[in-house]
Amino acid sequence: MRIEEDCIGKLSVEDDALYGIHTLRAVTNFPISAERLNPLIIQSLIQIKKAAAQVNHVAGTLTTEKQRAIVAACNDLLLGQHADSFIVPAIQGGAGTSANMNVNEVIANLAMRQTPHLALSPNDDVNQSQSTNDTFPTAGKMALLIQLPGLLRAVAQLVQTLQVKATTYQDAIKVGRTQLQDAVPTTYGRSFSAYHHLFKRDLTRLQVAGKALRSVNLGGTAIGTGVNATPYYQQHILTVLNQNTGLTLQTAPDLIDATQNCDAFVEFSSAMKTLAVNLSKFSNDLRLLASGPQAGLAELNLPARQAGSSIMPGKVNPVIPEVVNQVAFEVMGHDTTVTMAAEAGQLELNAFEPIMLRDLLASEHDLQQALMTLVRHCLRDLTVNTATCATAVEQSAITATVLTPYLGYMATTKLIQRALANHQSVKARLLQEKLLPSALINDLFTPAHLLAPRQNGTQVQQA
Amino acid sequence: MRIEEDCIGKLSVEDDALYGIHTLRAVTNFPISAERLNPLIIQSLIQIKKAAAQVNHVAGTLTTEKQRAIVAACNDLLLGQHADSFIVPAIQGGAGTSANMNVNEVIANLAMRQTPHLALSPNDDVNQSQSTNDTFPTAGKMALLIQLPGLLRAVAQLVQTLQVKATTYQDAIKVGRTQLQDAVPTTYGRSFSAYHHLFKRDLTRLQVAGKALRSVNLGGTAIGTGVNATPYYQQHILTVLNQNTGLTLQTAPDLIDATQNCDAFVEFSSAMKTLAVNLSKFSNDLRLLASGPQAGLAELNLPARQAGSSIMPGKVNPVIPEVVNQVAFEVMGHDTTVTMAAEAGQLELNAFEPIMLRDLLASEHDLQQALMTLVRHCLRDLTVNTATCATAVEQSAITATVLTPYLGYMATTKLIQRALANHQSVKARLLQEKLLPSALINDLFTPAHLLAPRQNGTQVQQA
Amino acid sequence: MRIEEDCIGKLSVEDDALYGIHTLRAVTNFPISAERLNPLIIQSLIQIKKAAAQVNHVAGTLTTEKQRAIVAACNDLLLGQHADSFIVPAIQGGAGTSANMNVNEVIANLAMRQTPHLALSPNDDVNQSQSTNDTFPTAGKMALLIQLPGLLRAVAQLVQTLQVKATTYQDAIKVGRTQLQDAVPTTYGRSFSAYHHLFKRDLTRLQVAGKALRSVNLGGTAIGTGVNATPYYQQHILTVLNQNTGLTLQTAPDLIDATQNCDAFVEFSSAMKTLAVNLSKFSNDLRLLASGPQAGLAELNLPARQAGSSIMPGKVNPVIPEVVNQVAFEVMGHDTTVTMAAEAGQLELNAFEPIMLRDLLASEHDLQQALMTLVRHCLRDLTVNTATCATAVEQSAITATVLTPYLGYMATTKLIQRALANHQSVKARLLQEKLLPSALINDLFTPAHLLAPRQNGTQVQQA
Amino acid sequence: MRIEEDCIGKLSVEDDALYGIHTLRAVTNFPISAERLNPLIIQSLIQIKKAAAQVNHVAGTLTTEKQRAIVAACNDLLLGQHADSFIVPAIQGGAGTSANMNVNEVIANLAMRQTPHLALSPNDDVNQSQSTNDTFPTAGKMALLIQLPGLLRAVAQLVQTLQVKATTYQDAIKVGRTQLQDAVPTTYGRSFSAYHHLFKRDLTRLQVAGKALRSVNLGGTAIGTGVNATPYYQQHILTVLNQNTGLTLQTAPDLIDATQNCDAFVEFSSAMKTLAVNLSKFSNDLRLLASGPQAGLAELNLPARQAGSSIMPGKVNPVIPEVVNQVAFEVMGHDTTVTMAAEAGQLELNAFEPIMLRDLLASEHDLQQALMTLVRHCLRDLTVNTATCATAVEQSAITATVLTPYLGYMATTKLIQRALANHQSVKARLLQEKLLPSALINDLFTPAHLLAPRQNGTQVQQA
Repeated sequence: MRIEEDCIGKLSVEDDALYGIHTLRAVTNFPISAERLNPLIIQSLIQIKKAAAQVNHVAGTLTTEKQRAIVAACNDLLLGQHADSFIVPAIQGGAGTSANMNVNEVIANLAMRQTPHLALSPNDDVNQSQSTNDTFPTAGKMALLIQLPGLLRAVAQLVQTLQVKATTYQDAIKVGRTQLQDAVPTTYGRSFSAYHHLFKRDLTRLQVAGKALRSVNLGGTAIGTGVNATPYYQQHILTVLNQNTGLTLQTAPDLIDATQNCDAFVEFSSAMKTLAVNLSKFSNDLRLLASGPQAGLAELNLPARQAGSSIMPGKVNPVIPEVVNQVAFEVMGHDTTVTMAAEAGQLELNAFEPIMLRDLLASEHDLQQALMTLVRHCLRDLTVNTATCATAVEQSAITATVLTPYLGYMATTKLIQRALANHQSVKARLLQEKLLPSALINDLFTPAHLLAPRQNGTQVQQA
Repeated sequence: MRIEEDCIGKLSVEDDALYGIHTLRAVTNFPISAERLNPLIIQSLIQIKKAAAQVNHVAGTLTTEKQRAIVAACNDLLLGQHADSFIVPAIQGGAGTSANMNVNEVIANLAMRQTPHLALSPNDDVNQSQSTNDTFPTAGKMALLIQLPGLLRAVAQLVQTLQVKATTYQDAIKVGRTQLQDAVPTTYGRSFSAYHHLFKRDLTRLQVAGKALRSVNLGGTAIGTGVNATPYYQQHILTVLNQNTGLTLQTAPDLIDATQNCDAFVEFSSAMKTLAVNLSKFSNDLRLLASGPQAGLAELNLPARQAGSSIMPGKVNPVIPEVVNQVAFEVMGHDTTVTMAAEAGQLELNAFEPIMLRDLLASEHDLQQALMTLVRHCLRDLTVNTATCATAVEQSAITATVLTPYLGYMATTKLIQRALANHQSVKARLLQEKLLPSALINDLFTPAHLLAPRQNGTQVQQA
Repeated sequence: MRIEEDCIGKLSVEDDALYGIHTLRAVTNFPISAERLNPLIIQSLIQIKKAAAQVNHVAGTLTTEKQRAIVAACNDLLLGQHADSFIVPAIQGGAGTSANMNVNEVIANLAMRQTPHLALSPNDDVNQSQSTNDTFPTAGKMALLIQLPGLLRAVAQLVQTLQVKATTYQDAIKVGRTQLQDAVPTTYGRSFSAYHHLFKRDLTRLQVAGKALRSVNLGGTAIGTGVNATPYYQQHILTVLNQNTGLTLQTAPDLIDATQNCDAFVEFSSAMKTLAVNLSKFSNDLRLLASGPQAGLAELNLPARQAGSSIMPGKVNPVIPEVVNQVAFEVMGHDTTVTMAAEAGQLELNAFEPIMLRDLLASEHDLQQALMTLVRHCLRDLTVNTATCATAVEQSAITATVLTPYLGYMATTKLIQRALANHQSVKARLLQEKLLPSALINDLFTPAHLLAPRQNGTQVQQA
Repeated sequence: MRIEEDCIGKLSVEDDALYGIHTLRAVTNFPISAERLNPLIIQSLIQIKKAAAQVNHVAGTLTTEKQRAIVAACNDLLLGQHADSFIVPAIQGGAGTSANMNVNEVIANLAMRQTPHLALSPNDDVNQSQSTNDTFPTAGKMALLIQLPGLLRAVAQLVQTLQVKATTYQDAIKVGRTQLQDAVPTTYGRSFSAYHHLFKRDLTRLQVAGKALRSVNLGGTAIGTGVNATPYYQQHILTVLNQNTGLTLQTAPDLIDATQNCDAFVEFSSAMKTLAVNLSKFSNDLRLLASGPQAGLAELNLPARQAGSSIMPGKVNPVIPEVVNQVAFEVMGHDTTVTMAAEAGQLELNAFEPIMLRDLLASEHDLQQALMTLVRHCLRDLTVNTATCATAVEQSAITATVLTPYLGYMATTKLIQRALANHQSVKARLLQEKLLPSALINDLFTPAHLLAPRQNGTQVQQA
């Protein structure tokens, strides 16, 4: 065991540990759950450390030897080596200081192990020109941006799949339902097209909110004044970081603001929550339209994915939409957490970024996965019971709505009542009562009229 | 009393009532609270009825006489006449049908009163080419858009006021605080500037979300297929409505989608919630920085607005930020309601638009009012205790942070510990210990160094 | 106009106004919405003032003349006189000070108007031994307790109505549905009985949470130390207040705690939220089971309450459950607001009680009204389509579940598949395949077996 | 590889896998996150399987040999063997069927491995008399009940620690603060006592809500009708399960109700949320009262737990309260998720129990851990700066509140204004102005008067 010291006192650290005293204290202080800090945040912090060493070197505040050692260590870590050295918990106090110091310590110790006789300080060298308060939120935004394209792709696949379904079922007439009561007809082509347009808007919302994440406070150090960073560092750190990572981060216009306010996280969480609302509504619709097989609507066939019951033989359940619903509820819960945590920021810092980032990254990841299983395991092989749907339209009295421009609302209401009382279809009753010419009646009850705006300007015949 | 009839049966209506049976049924069915439907929704529905009459007339589906009578009645109602005829409750079942029918009935009865011998049907004439399912959400969006400029102006006034404060106090040095512990210094100029940038982003977010509200489903009638509307009506209704109102509504690309999905409401609610989070954080900061007068931070003086206590004489409380906090909590609660209601939509319609619109309009209104009282009654006359703030910086040990590029993190830590143990300021201790040249020491502890990036690239002198 | 003065300065007040300067300042400071403070809070504050005058008089700190004048004024106000003098807004900063002072001022001015030559101070006399910090939350709890019996009665009526329905439809067999897929059968008797048990638990939860509201901090004055109250007052105020009002308030065990913590509000909000969750689930079920009339489940007939559409003739919608859903969403939103506001309390006080009480009282009121309309306008006249339900059971393949103790899960699965492939009922297929004796088969498919535990211990016949 | 078959088709399973086809399908269908089903739910399901085998055997529906084999396998698994066989994800569709089948399959395969020549069916034997719909929610409640004592102990430790602190600091006078403004004095003894009473109520709330979890639907099988269970099984299963586990589960009064409604989960979540609200408020207070060291309130010293900053030397932050705050926000988020999921139940089942149980178990666990770190690492070694606190009281003008029974509210207000204008303490000014006898003045400003009700009934001397 080696002895390390901080402003609190001394602590023994295992001899071969790459982390140090600051990391160990965090493990003792925050035994909340078994979940460790998200590896994407670790990876992003390492990228920041590497870029900082490169820029500090050019700025003249870090020796060549130190810079080389730090960069080499970072490169090894970015390949996934020593991943088990990053042990700080996901839920941690201290506004991310433990996360930042875990990375500083591992890099410093690895670099010193690789470069004998070199003395490197986690704080003065690896953390040079930086503070937890600018590196941690920047790394968090980087992690979200790294995951974002996957989420966008998954939404895009959903959009595309819905478009294909819309084409396949463009002529599949069905009963519309408002307030769960039979309404005028539509087609499954239009239904799928409507969902397709809905999720296209989610794509846009996520892109807009994602853009806001690109604005970071790196270079602001402790509270955004940039104390202890050099102007050279401030001007070049993002250029180098972007070159190294392929991201397109930008320095926030006001570093004080960017250090203390978490509105970009609330905004991104809101965009994910809106997607979750839409996914939940869509999943609810799928489950309802696939209800049955005998005692439900039975309009849709979702592909059978697993036996549905341990006791009821042959039962098959809509398990994929069900898991999507649950991810949606989880994302809405995360939104509450992010909202509370963002509101709780005080003065020059929000100390609750760890929980925000944990939940945001989980929402982003789980939404992507939920979308992928929805597309692959449910939507692609979904089919429509077109005959069932068409029969339901024929039996529906509400198709009489097309008559109101000719008969008026009240007269049509009474016609429907007479038809239902005599167990007739409205069309049959109407033909019997001869209130309109037979040709017109037959014409009006075709899909061309049932599904579209009226094609002429005939006046209502009022009593 | 006159007798009216609907598909349910007959009902007596007061002879002089402009509303009719559909309205009365709603009053009986939905006795939830005393709150009536928001007048801005009523007003917007009337505008829709007026424009519809104009367009239907040109389309050839409404006679000149009916059109004139409807438009005249609408014009009177838009002037505020007969406002007590709109009695349907704010919280109503039926997806807004009662609201729509209340307006249809009042217009029809008023028009018939004004044009003897004219027979007008609320459904066939006033509601011609329309359905509750397209008029109600469109009217709701119109109402939100009518209120939006006021909210934007209020945010803009906050932004502007903060900018003025930033200029006034640009040199007022103060202790920064992270995690409520003393941190490196900043100025009130920078603090106000940071808030100013924050709320500028809220302006943008509200504008973006507001733009989405302009996309409406008018012309879609019952479920978006446009059944019973004419193509002419569909193509011209928004042009006329925009001309009459000055709004810039657009027909949604997919009317089925636009009829069933409420993501635009979730999006707008999210933008308001994000503003609420920011306002709450800002109010919390104001209250904390103004804490005292003797046993608090006492950095800010909020203008005294009222006696603070019924029992403690002379007590003055931060009542304006407190009411802002509460409006923020209300808006966050409304966001939960909107989220739940939007998720609960089913198939071709969301039946819960009444509660969404109620809450969205209340959030929008109350945020505007909260912002106005915040600017007028608190921020404009707020002052900074600059002397108190400057003294606190002098006494703060954490200013020693500027020494770390010269002494290193650990050596500086120990210097601070020695200074505190000896009840000295760090600067005094450092001058005594002569670890750095006196001139440099004196230079480092000036605002120019304390508040900005380090001005040269001096290396850390490690032990 | 008369001139009044407070620690801020002077202000003109209308000559005939019963309120004074403190009230007027609130109106200027908090122009959030048109909603005024809930009259039940006003009424409860008046009761407190009256009881305080009575107790202070006996304690020897208030003269007989002042006591008589205050009590007389309170009695008039409690009869509803001068109700328009209570003008402070529902959403107000200042932790309720404006509400308390509005009441103090009106009582003092009314008493002085009624007793010439008597000088009464709103603070020293009417507010004697009190502070906003103990009167306002106590009055809030009183208001909630005044409304609570109405809510409990409404829940009890729901419970009772469901029990009646359970009896009426005890033999109405129907398809059970899990995950919206057909499951083993049940009866509407059992369904209604299940809801009945559910809402009985809500009754208990509301009663438990309501009991917590009876613990109040009256007598604690400013922060719970009781400064400026006499011990006599502290010991007797609740006795007199309870006598005057019929309530059963109790002095909290720790007045400091009771002044600063709002957990009783969170607890009560949670109980209402749980009821809201249950009501929303129940309403969703009602709407789904009543879906149709042709293209839905059509198991339930909800009484028609109003025409359902402005465009689709004859359409009738489940408007009562829909309004119940919306009240449920509102209550869930209020729970968010209460949670945020309760969490935001600081040190010796929670300044955000006004918004908490506003929302709690609204939830309590609106839930009661929603329950009443649900019972009266929907449940009482609800009927079951028993024939439709019975037919669905006969057609359901999942009834084959009763066979698994005899055939095993896999063999039954395959039997179902063969039956469906041949468009036969499972029973018919089974009789044809003779896998079990005919008598047993006929017996198993009777309600006695389908709806209950198996009546013997026959072993599975495994392959 | 071996081939297994279900109603969907065939699938290859690794030869040595204890799980089977149903488990594997879940892994493919629900690739949401890396988190597997909570081991406490697995353990509880195994306990149910074991008890069911025992009871079914006595009921005569399971052979002795099968019973012995199942019980032996369960016993091994309960010792933690083959824990890696339970691979179904935490977030899963299917209402827990995959979880139930994973356990059924592992037990059946392990039993068959241990008992050569025995044929055991996961469904017919291991799952006999059961359904996912009764075993899964029962196992979930068991898991919550297993964890509950740990949470209760942790709350009790907090309560006890606060009581100790209350005793230690019973005489430590301090400024009270309402609305963050100086108020009448109190002591830290009273402050800690107040928190102590607060958290005692949380203990009660958790116990009450925990009691509701003991009511389970085991024996109800698929939808609560008990189909395929024997009456003997229904009557004895809980007795045996309680004997085996030491729990005190009870059969719910209505099994249909207990199968479909999740109000017990909402109730338990609400109790945890209320605790979270209180913990967050308490943590906020701790952080505020410990603010400083130079530019804050500096009344409390929280034990230093780790270096607070990577850049600011010597900085120490309140990291333990900060992590408690974050757990509180997480619990509030989970409450949203549980609320949404509970509301989404439909008809005879709530399919979203997996996400509810995931979040409830996480809340319960994390709250316990947060409480433990709060007590051990923060509260036990917390100290009060008694001198600082006492000085603040002396300097506070608001102590003049004790004068109002003698001078009146307005006269005292003006006295304070004169004192502050002349930079005097109120007491000094009062002695100078001789408005009251010196002896009384000196007496009133002692803790005995400042901290308690007034000890006599002196009338206000009004002008």
